[in-house]
Amino acid sequence: MKSITEYLTFKVPKRMDFVHITPDVERIVKKSGIQEGLCLVNAMHITASVFINDDEQGLHADYEKWLEKLAPHEPIKQYRHNATGEDNADAHLKRQVMGREVTVAVTEGRLDFGPWEQIFYGEFDGRRRKRVLIKIIGE
Amino acid sequence: MKSITEYLTFKVPKRMDFVHITPDVERIVKKSGIQEGLCLVNAMHITASVFINDDEQGLHADYEKWLEKLAPHEPIKQYRHNATGEDNADAHLKRQVMGREVTVAVTEGRLDFGPWEQIFYGEFDGRRRKRVLIKIIGE
Amino acid sequence: MKSITEYLTFKVPKRMDFVHITPDVERIVKKSGIQEGLCLVNAMHITASVFINDDEQGLHADYEKWLEKLAPHEPIKQYRHNATGEDNADAHLKRQVMGREVTVAVTEGRLDFGPWEQIFYGEFDGRRRKRVLIKIIGE
Repeated sequence: MKSITEYLTFKVPKRMDFVHITPDVERIVKKSGIQEGLCLVNAMHITASVFINDDEQGLHADYEKWLEKLAPHEPIKQYRHNATGEDNADAHLKRQVMGREVTVAVTEGRLDFGPWEQIFYGEFDGRRRKRVLIKIIGE
Repeated sequence: MKSITEYLTFKVPKRMDFVHITPDVERIVKKSGIQEGLCLVNAMHITASVFINDDEQGLHADYEKWLEKLAPHEPIKQYRHNATGEDNADAHLKRQVMGREVTVAVTEGRLDFGPWEQIFYGEFDGRRRKRVLIKIIGE
Repeated sequence: MKSITEYLTFKVPKRMDFVHITPDVERIVKKSGIQEGLCLVNAMHITASVFINDDEQGLHADYEKWLEKLAPHEPIKQYRHNATGEDNADAHLKRQVMGREVTVAVTEGRLDFGPWEQIFYGEFDGRRRKRVLIKIIGE
């Protein structure tokens, strides 16, 4: 069994945004030399997500609006978590909707994706340095 | 390490519906000969889900109603994504709630499930041909 | 390839609650002797979750309030599933928001976590005996 572990670092300027990371993950799959295996990609921070969806700006705007409706940032004081001095309780909620991680099949040395699948880092409490982990195991 | 990769194809007649796929996945586990490992089952399309829950028609009706409330299909124009000519922005949102994938333990050659766990394909923008990937690695 | 499979058992006294299980998972990682691999942790019941977030009581209260708003327990009869004699349809919905499972990288013999990541068992229909599965594969 082979394995590879790498980390990506982000400091997203906006509070909420989505960053396309498929090329980073593809580069690591290639570097690993793994032909058949599983590739885990996860946010290492609990106010961020990794998810797979469409690389389309209109849809990303829809996600922002929808998540803000499901778990509004304001008023800050509606959340008990924010009594700790934080203002990011909503980001912990948004991240649960969008998910922490994806596991992707690696087949014949490549991410085994459908036609529109792309991997995104979802930031819900930006302007802080955060990391994503990529780990692939296989042969 | 052994691995197997298979694909299921669906063309669901309704816009939203749930298809029970546990028997398909069990068949592939058996075919693989893998005794101990991990089994990834994921939608390859970004307006569909794979999830694990109860095989109960009333619950599925509850999911449909609830998802329609959280992310309504109409009005189409409330979503920027639909300005691309699509009408399926809501399906991209619903899929995030229900999830893209499940990873299931394979133990002693079988899906290691609790008493009520069943695997479903969740379709949110049907009447199109779509695929599910099953990949198992282990020994 | 090595693998280990273990089960945790819970009987949570409240209907909804969150139980910190990181120490249990760490113990199993150590016991396995696996240095590089993937660790799956999943609820084996369909009205419960396993998720990764902050070990902060205020946030957990926020999750309870938020989930109750997204998928209210009452009125019981709003859900078709409850016509089966159950009263837990809301728990099946809440579990989809919080997720069934997490997959965690094992690197150099340890859970490869960001600074605040902790694993929780999320119970949405307590006062019943339920299990969580931990399976690690790797080398």
